[in-house]
Amino acid sequence: MSQKAIYNYEIGAEKVDFTLHATIEALCSDILNVAGNDAKRKGFSADTLMQSGRSWVLSRMSVELDRMPAQNEPYSIATWVYDNTRVLSTRNFELTDSNGVIFGRAVSQWCIIDFEKRMPVALSEYADLFEGYIVDAPAPCEAPRKVRGIEPQIYRKHEVRYSDIDFNRHVNTMRYIRMMLNTLPIEYLTDNRPMRLDIHFAKECHLGEILTIGYEQRDDTSLFEILNNDGVVACTAAIEWK
Amino acid sequence: MSQKAIYNYEIGAEKVDFTLHATIEALCSDILNVAGNDAKRKGFSADTLMQSGRSWVLSRMSVELDRMPAQNEPYSIATWVYDNTRVLSTRNFELTDSNGVIFGRAVSQWCIIDFEKRMPVALSEYADLFEGYIVDAPAPCEAPRKVRGIEPQIYRKHEVRYSDIDFNRHVNTMRYIRMMLNTLPIEYLTDNRPMRLDIHFAKECHLGEILTIGYEQRDDTSLFEILNNDGVVACTAAIEWK
Repeated sequence: MSQKAIYNYEIGAEKVDFTLHATIEALCSDILNVAGNDAKRKGFSADTLMQSGRSWVLSRMSVELDRMPAQNEPYSIATWVYDNTRVLSTRNFELTDSNGVIFGRAVSQWCIIDFEKRMPVALSEYADLFEGYIVDAPAPCEAPRKVRGIEPQIYRKHEVRYSDIDFNRHVNTMRYIRMMLNTLPIEYLTDNRPMRLDIHFAKECHLGEILTIGYEQRDDTSLFEILNNDGVVACTAAIEWK
Repeated sequence: MSQKAIYNYEIGAEKVDFTLHATIEALCSDILNVAGNDAKRKGFSADTLMQSGRSWVLSRMSVELDRMPAQNEPYSIATWVYDNTRVLSTRNFELTDSNGVIFGRAVSQWCIIDFEKRMPVALSEYADLFEGYIVDAPAPCEAPRKVRGIEPQIYRKHEVRYSDIDFNRHVNTMRYIRMMLNTLPIEYLTDNRPMRLDIHFAKECHLGEILTIGYEQRDDTSLFEILNNDGVVACTAAIEWK
């Protein structure tokens, strides 16, 4: 049976905002980099899948952050593949500070997409690759919740440019999060409140598309939807501020 | 006499575009992080200056990149403080790949700004701090050139949002570079051509300002200017494609 893998990080100067605490975006970016690095180390990374015209695509994610660590704070991310359903692979994360306190938890759900067929692939095809790498530890937090019924009060536009595009030639996952956070009144981001993010990626967006970011504040929850050039929902999310 | 300091880096997945080569932005970001880390290690970082209401501000930079390294390539950045004039401190950089080939060079010129007086400080005030840290090695490339007489053919707008702001509460240096690169036809960025960037920061921009990015293509040179909310030049740059 495999163990949780631990990756060590530090809150570098490029990860903080003007409060000198890590941004939500930077912590989510570290989480996703750990996913990529761990998959690579274990032989089932996007690089490997690309050789047969396939790639990992993030479908849903939940992230809970109890506090934003300060600049230069060391911290670690533990990660483990938890479960594979027919087309969804679940990878979990725990963020631990230098006092051994777990201050962040995340659950991510991924598909393998075949670029030619534009369809998710049955993960049973890859059972050999995952053999021995499933870790039977409980999920660190609730799995990603559905986010529905958003009624935006504020809209912003964003044209997809070079810096928004990832190695799959789609809008980078992190950019959706950045676009959403950038619609918020800045106090939400600088008050260092505990929060939970649920995000659902429905459709990839491409270079040159003009996206519409809709934002609704409903009590202590910030709700977001991003529409693609054709007005189709590409991404929805909710942030619950605690 | 002090020596060049060496910092080791790798082209992580977050630093590449869809060609799987490092972006200009990512390499410039590493260069500026090295500046911050090296200043910190030597006791004259922005953190130290902030205690007396002052900070380093980047005034001008030239960067030459012969090629964009590929994902996962290790590389190193050598840095040294070269010279202090009355208000400008010059810090140099050399980027070397794992074969020992220097593929990048940069010269950066910094002021110390007093936030209350809004004025650069005479560096002679800090002579003690720099004592023993000036390295008498030749500049790795030509110092930043003046960039003038830009006649934009294309304009874009950008509203300054949370993710654009740095620890000084100004638009992050890297964001100006990103805004400029995002106005270019994408081929310039993905053809992996050797290039030289000259950039001049004239005025800081703030949250909520609507910036205008002007772009002119003149033969093999891309010229840029960024105007602040009041139409005043905040930043100019030229990229020469070789």
